[in-house]
Amino acid sequence: MTTDTYPQKGFNTVNRYKHQATYDVEMIHSVINSTPVLHVSFVPDPSIPAPIVLPMIGQMGLFPGDRARGEEEWNCYLHGYVSSRLMKLADGAVKRGEEGLPLCVAATKVDGFVLTLTPNTHNYNYRSAVLQGFATIVEDQEEKIWAMELITNSVVPNRYENTRIPPDGAEMQSTRILKLKITGASGKVREGVPNDERKDMKREEVLDTVWTGVIPVYEKLGDPQPGPYNRLSEIPDHVKSFVQEQNKTREKYAFDAAHKPAPVKRVKKGEEE
Amino acid sequence: MTTDTYPQKGFNTVNRYKHQATYDVEMIHSVINSTPVLHVSFVPDPSIPAPIVLPMIGQMGLFPGDRARGEEEWNCYLHGYVSSRLMKLADGAVKRGEEGLPLCVAATKVDGFVLTLTPNTHNYNYRSAVLQGFATIVEDQEEKIWAMELITNSVVPNRYENTRIPPDGAEMQSTRILKLKITGASGKVREGVPNDERKDMKREEVLDTVWTGVIPVYEKLGDPQPGPYNRLSEIPDHVKSFVQEQNKTREKYAFDAAHKPAPVKRVKKGEEE
Repeated sequence: MTTDTYPQKGFNTVNRYKHQATYDVEMIHSVINSTPVLHVSFVPDPSIPAPIVLPMIGQMGLFPGDRARGEEEWNCYLHGYVSSRLMKLADGAVKRGEEGLPLCVAATKVDGFVLTLTPNTHNYNYRSAVLQGFATIVEDQEEKIWAMELITNSVVPNRYENTRIPPDGAEMQSTRILKLKITGASGKVREGVPNDERKDMKREEVLDTVWTGVIPVYEKLGDPQPGPYNRLSEIPDHVKSFVQEQNKTREKYAFDAAHKPAPVKRVKKGEEE
Repeated sequence: MTTDTYPQKGFNTVNRYKHQATYDVEMIHSVINSTPVLHVSFVPDPSIPAPIVLPMIGQMGLFPGDRARGEEEWNCYLHGYVSSRLMKLADGAVKRGEEGLPLCVAATKVDGFVLTLTPNTHNYNYRSAVLQGFATIVEDQEEKIWAMELITNSVVPNRYENTRIPPDGAEMQSTRILKLKITGASGKVREGVPNDERKDMKREEVLDTVWTGVIPVYEKLGDPQPGPYNRLSEIPDHVKSFVQEQNKTREKYAFDAAHKPAPVKRVKKGEEE
């Protein structure tokens, strides 16, 4: 990518808890890529300002064909539970000569429950990312297959090549992939031990009676359970080692986050928009 | 509640994978209530059909004061990272005599990765819920405190009464709670072993070489980590027993889901809208 941070302008500017905000491309992409379900929002009827949210699977990527044409910005490819309504809207926008359907994609990873002295200071350790942009349907067959592989392998690496491929004609026809061209993106991170306000840190009876600390939280992968028509006696390495490595990495992140220093500042007046 | 299912009308009607759809109130509420972060969508500028999504904490509830007035429908109370922008919009809507700000709230729990014979049939075990409605700011002080307790205890049960309460004047003023009056809701559930299409179930070489099964997924709570100014030598029971019980329940759900029968039908032509 040409830039390490997303530009800060308009809607993607984080106005609350500014010290926890990030526009770092690598961090934002990592939250999107490691979240199994993205929440995708769009407006079904432009005459009514009421959005709808759908859970979808997605992944950041730069299609080699785009790269060859000099493109440097990564897109978000979306798949799964893509309603025909969404598809018609994206199609309609392009036909009207617009850039695509305005979409907002959000991903949040909860890394811990931060238990403090008062309800008000309770918090989560978390990482979140929000993308905004315009979505179009991927029509190019080569790009579509490339995105299908990208998305399948985002669930379990190397899974695509360990299944029956390539997709046949009916599968290619029934699969639809959305490509989100990103116009703005932002992220937020909170990590670290609890922090409380000065007024409560002076109250001996409060400090003596309220337990404070962090409950680490992470998405755990259980031992793979063979299905009823599975014939392989051993769980293949691309599944087994993935589960082991992920569990180590995820657990470590949550526990590390629970012990890092707290964010320096809490919310201040004037930081809110 | 007066009804066990949400009415099926307009936007909340699930048109894809109908056999996985649910309008069951208890199921929808349980997904919302057990999801630590809800994704809340709104349209910041009604003249532009571009939504934004914010991560928030929320919980279903029926305020005793409302119940006393004969209300029977539960609302969704939202807190946390409530931008002032969102608050201004909700306030503006009410001042214009509207029901509130149109919001869509989504929650998804991933229960497993379902690995099948082909990329196309790969799936998740999951539970998702989507609420639509109109949001207003809770102004009544009694209702606000009640909602703060509801939301704090949704993170860890009984946490509220184990902290320094009640909130003081500054805390009451800085806290804002949104109340979503629900006009439509829907949910989706997929559980069970893998299922593949007939064409692949006949291919011996595919069945002989592709591992199929489920990787159970659940949100694991790690051992509570005391913070730097914690003075209690023991982790209190409301924290310790919560972590133990939750881990048992969550693990069991994900493993049970991995072994249930697969949904009877896969997507059929004509089910999509």
